[in-house]
Amino acid sequence: MSAGQGLFVSLEGIDGSGKSTQAKLLADALKRDGHEVVLTREPGGSPGAEEIRALVLQGDPDRWSAETEILLFTAARRDHMERLILPALEAGKIVVCDRFADSTRVYQGLSRGDLRRLVDQLHDLMIGREPDLTVLIDMEPDAGLARAKGRQGAEERFEDFGLSLQERMRAGYLDMAQAAPDRFRVIDGGRDIETVAGDVHAAVAAAIP
Amino acid sequence: MSAGQGLFVSLEGIDGSGKSTQAKLLADALKRDGHEVVLTREPGGSPGAEEIRALVLQGDPDRWSAETEILLFTAARRDHMERLILPALEAGKIVVCDRFADSTRVYQGLSRGDLRRLVDQLHDLMIGREPDLTVLIDMEPDAGLARAKGRQGAEERFEDFGLSLQERMRAGYLDMAQAAPDRFRVIDGGRDIETVAGDVHAAVAAAIP
Repeated sequence: MSAGQGLFVSLEGIDGSGKSTQAKLLADALKRDGHEVVLTREPGGSPGAEEIRALVLQGDPDRWSAETEILLFTAARRDHMERLILPALEAGKIVVCDRFADSTRVYQGLSRGDLRRLVDQLHDLMIGREPDLTVLIDMEPDAGLARAKGRQGAEERFEDFGLSLQERMRAGYLDMAQAAPDRFRVIDGGRDIETVAGDVHAAVAAAIP
Repeated sequence: MSAGQGLFVSLEGIDGSGKSTQAKLLADALKRDGHEVVLTREPGGSPGAEEIRALVLQGDPDRWSAETEILLFTAARRDHMERLILPALEAGKIVVCDRFADSTRVYQGLSRGDLRRLVDQLHDLMIGREPDLTVLIDMEPDAGLARAKGRQGAEERFEDFGLSLQERMRAGYLDMAQAAPDRFRVIDGGRDIETVAGDVHAAVAAAIP
């Protein structure tokens, strides 16, 4: 898919890292700066992708195999890209996306080693584009888990993993950040929300063309 | 995915070629021969795949792009393979499937030339297996179209194409059959149902290990 004129920013991090809150604060700050901003999230983000999200996340979590689930998430991502992200970028807007393909890489890649390669191959074939900038909200898993467990929510499955998996996910994110330093900005999420938000805003503002 | 001990047979053909009727008659004849037979169909065939089928085929036909639709059909096929086809083959059964990947190749490949390559790449990556035998019920498009139009049905979209597209689909099927003569058996579907059924049964019976 062709690159647009805007800026495509994703926020990533382990559960409880505060990335959804930071995505909202970032969108607000960029709007105050005078930019046109589209705040979105994955899985989902467009009407079709939200239907696929509901199909995957509702019901018995074991009813889809990992491979079928990756195909469904990739279908949702393709729809989200075509219908929302690319048109916004082509209109010169800043897209702030709470999770993108790195989430699939980390979550599916940790469940079975050979799935990470499959996720990458499917991404290259059907999506073919990374965010211009990925802000990784990094924090200690025990702090993140405590925060995630304090929340209520119908879709608990992504947070129902425990501390050791959170540690492996954190390591997975940090490995990706190290492998793609031009795309990633790693922000310490273990500080107060406003301090973190200031750093996220500054990192993104510096990347605006 | 690993090969099983049974026999995996798909039936293909243009709309109105009678392949669904022939699939049923074939399953009945093989059962009378004493074989364990699983009769199934695509898109769908397993509970998860049927849910994906409903998501794709219900509602506005333009709400998914061709690429998203291919991903969704591949997700359905993956589920169908894992949950129904492979277990049946491993149990030594004969699987008779009304449409399989060749339908996706013909339908999607005709709508845009570059999609055929994408369908093949996605199939190789996520499905990786062809039927042991594909029976192509070949017939004149005008006869098939007249038959298809005589039917009632809620899911009309695959049949709402007209004669010229049916002609191109027939040519697409015959090209595939010529390219893979070991897998394909081409049967003249323009004769009475019992004569066609006898030929289909004989072709499959000759391929049983």
